[in-house]
Amino acid sequence: MAADNTLTNQRVRKLTDVILSDYELGRDVDQIDVFSRPDSAVVTDITLKLLNILYPGYYRERNYRSYNYNSRISVLIEDVLYNLQKQIAIALRFAKDYQDASYETVSAAAEDKAIRFLEEIPKIRALADTDLEAFYEGDPAAFNKEEIVLCYPGFLASSINRLAHEMFLLEIPLIPRMMTEYAHSRTGIDIHPGATIGRYFFMDHGTGIVVGETSIIGEHVKVYQGVTIGALSTKGGQRLKGAKRHPTIEDDVTIYGGATILGGDTVIGKGSVIGGNVFITTSVKPGSRVSVKTQELLIKRGDEDGAW
Amino acid sequence: MAADNTLTNQRVRKLTDVILSDYELGRDVDQIDVFSRPDSAVVTDITLKLLNILYPGYYRERNYRSYNYNSRISVLIEDVLYNLQKQIAIALRFAKDYQDASYETVSAAAEDKAIRFLEEIPKIRALADTDLEAFYEGDPAAFNKEEIVLCYPGFLASSINRLAHEMFLLEIPLIPRMMTEYAHSRTGIDIHPGATIGRYFFMDHGTGIVVGETSIIGEHVKVYQGVTIGALSTKGGQRLKGAKRHPTIEDDVTIYGGATILGGDTVIGKGSVIGGNVFITTSVKPGSRVSVKTQELLIKRGDEDGAW
Amino acid sequence: MAADNTLTNQRVRKLTDVILSDYELGRDVDQIDVFSRPDSAVVTDITLKLLNILYPGYYRERNYRSYNYNSRISVLIEDVLYNLQKQIAIALRFAKDYQDASYETVSAAAEDKAIRFLEEIPKIRALADTDLEAFYEGDPAAFNKEEIVLCYPGFLASSINRLAHEMFLLEIPLIPRMMTEYAHSRTGIDIHPGATIGRYFFMDHGTGIVVGETSIIGEHVKVYQGVTIGALSTKGGQRLKGAKRHPTIEDDVTIYGGATILGGDTVIGKGSVIGGNVFITTSVKPGSRVSVKTQELLIKRGDEDGAW
Repeated sequence: MAADNTLTNQRVRKLTDVILSDYELGRDVDQIDVFSRPDSAVVTDITLKLLNILYPGYYRERNYRSYNYNSRISVLIEDVLYNLQKQIAIALRFAKDYQDASYETVSAAAEDKAIRFLEEIPKIRALADTDLEAFYEGDPAAFNKEEIVLCYPGFLASSINRLAHEMFLLEIPLIPRMMTEYAHSRTGIDIHPGATIGRYFFMDHGTGIVVGETSIIGEHVKVYQGVTIGALSTKGGQRLKGAKRHPTIEDDVTIYGGATILGGDTVIGKGSVIGGNVFITTSVKPGSRVSVKTQELLIKRGDEDGAW
Repeated sequence: MAADNTLTNQRVRKLTDVILSDYELGRDVDQIDVFSRPDSAVVTDITLKLLNILYPGYYRERNYRSYNYNSRISVLIEDVLYNLQKQIAIALRFAKDYQDASYETVSAAAEDKAIRFLEEIPKIRALADTDLEAFYEGDPAAFNKEEIVLCYPGFLASSINRLAHEMFLLEIPLIPRMMTEYAHSRTGIDIHPGATIGRYFFMDHGTGIVVGETSIIGEHVKVYQGVTIGALSTKGGQRLKGAKRHPTIEDDVTIYGGATILGGDTVIGKGSVIGGNVFITTSVKPGSRVSVKTQELLIKRGDEDGAW
Repeated sequence: MAADNTLTNQRVRKLTDVILSDYELGRDVDQIDVFSRPDSAVVTDITLKLLNILYPGYYRERNYRSYNYNSRISVLIEDVLYNLQKQIAIALRFAKDYQDASYETVSAAAEDKAIRFLEEIPKIRALADTDLEAFYEGDPAAFNKEEIVLCYPGFLASSINRLAHEMFLLEIPLIPRMMTEYAHSRTGIDIHPGATIGRYFFMDHGTGIVVGETSIIGEHVKVYQGVTIGALSTKGGQRLKGAKRHPTIEDDVTIYGGATILGGDTVIGKGSVIGGNVFITTSVKPGSRVSVKTQELLIKRGDEDGAW
């Protein structure tokens, strides 16, 4: 601290007053009822525990070093159920149907949705198993399937997305998006929980992939880094809510790195291959091969010292 | 451990000696005065607490579960002030003006800069509120404003950048960049703290956005994933330090995904729309619509089994 | 909990049974022998400690606040050695040569590989010092070299990659990839541990960079955000394992943002400059300057209100 403590203390006191009174302006950033919002840290914890339930052999439980999977997983399921229904109950207050409902109604709905979500775990695991197969077949650099579950970001993002999508279908607000944004943060892959994705989905490298809310993706689809499956323009803003703004990708399509496919009416036909960096806003027929028509490059010999 | 422990122990001892003596070669990687550098973990902690001060209703304080915001936030502000001034004092040693200054001079300057920074919090909150409005209006997939504060990476990156930019203006070395690189790591959005950004700034998806140090961005600007606002060439290296190397983007400009805008003399005029994947190194007039002239695509029907 | 606890309890019990029996289908996702796989959290911890050993002056050890580096680093080296050899022993079970070997054989091999890896630390530090020089020279926005070590994601990714590459050369399965995927998650830079990279390697911004397994990169190479050095097609899948599928980049090459270079036979000659967004699948001679031939842009004046 500097010598003149009195002056400093006055300054700090004044500073605190200024900041505190700034919270009273009634703007959106001034909302302060902290217990009325889902908690990011809790949702992340739930997400990690759900991954543990999906792949019990790949996530070591640090607290219960038991070989008894049945009891370990039972404890985990009850833990997730307890915390998830609490978060859902908080989130449901943001849904039109529940904002004025009684505490009992919201609690019962939250519990019901949490259980119905967990009942989908076997379905999600069956989908994840097809993804694992697709990742292994798709990537010659994959050492084995263990490596994919242990460290492939595309597999992680896909797994979290499949979980979040089921919650989205159950009309649980906020939480599915918090889960996919956790995946986005860890992997650079941004798939909206609303996107519908078929079996055997493969993403390589992943960084920069964007898949919009109303996208429909078939089976055996392969997507590489930097691919956008997005909206043509978001100029309409909130008025476009609910409209199909994102493309449909049929079965057996491969989309190479950096390609951009836009628009709610755009359909990429079955078995098509979209080349690297292609920018496409109209439909293509099944079996199409789309590539950038020989990109014209300017190649000149430079001088020895490498000046541009 | 293998059977022959003596041999192994000798090998480990030798290994340790080799590594320790490698620190004595006097290279840049050999700097070992650990207490002379800002601490990444502390700077991250300060950053998270600053977000808590910006949006007190969105970050639950785990240690003080008090409903009394005033006392909770007061404690938080004093905590940030204390730790921030310590980190600033360390960082100031790297600034030309302070490298030979007395301990008292550096301490007083660090305290003053920390307080002056915190005095900007209301200004930063006012800016953040305009961003929140822009995010909600800009994205039809946004469920509500809560979702944006809770989990939109673009909003997080923008908030951290606005904090870091104020520190940058106060000529605090190292720490602002450590803060924006924390945001970069979490979001894939890389905005240099030096960039000047106006009100109502919206970034969607965000991954891969790069905004260079000397960029100037107006109000109501929208930027999508993979956009670079960068330098033409960094061939000059350290000799270019301080020069305006990055573009100016005027008010009401929208820049769609994958577009690249380069050069310190490049000005994108007010109200312009830069289409996806456009690569531009010269200025465009206000109200321009720039798009890639119908990208020539090669589309051919493939055979049924999908061979290329 | 809702009122009808008996019903709820039955539902939860049934749910748990359904999930537990789902683990018994014998699919890849059903592997449950948890102690047979390397542990991601432990590998991350080892990676952070290795960074601490590489740059002892930049990472403050929280537990041992000792000024005595020698003893602190000795403890750290023994800690890494102990944990690394345990993880290597687990990982080696996935290598063909060790899957049926005795416990003693695997332990001895793991210990030997861990020590041999650590013996490469001085070599890795020498490489890192050349990277640090290249980063400082390459980026006018770099305040000083401290800033680069403290917070540049490209430098972090390169350092982790140089560590992982040495493990890759020692034929340690799984662990190198887990390390580079940790770097990928933190930085958006995805370099396979198999890639061979020369001295003075510089990556700016970094997000979206992909460097494939069999890439060979020379000295003094500069790479910007969104660059892919990748395979032409992965259609062959697992049958392509081991083949050279990725390009060779010779010394003194600069590759600007968004460029894509594909194919195992593609060689970018010494001193070449590859411009932004170039897509290239054939070799170019030394000293070439490759750029997209004036991208044809469609520029039209819009009406005042900014409608597209």
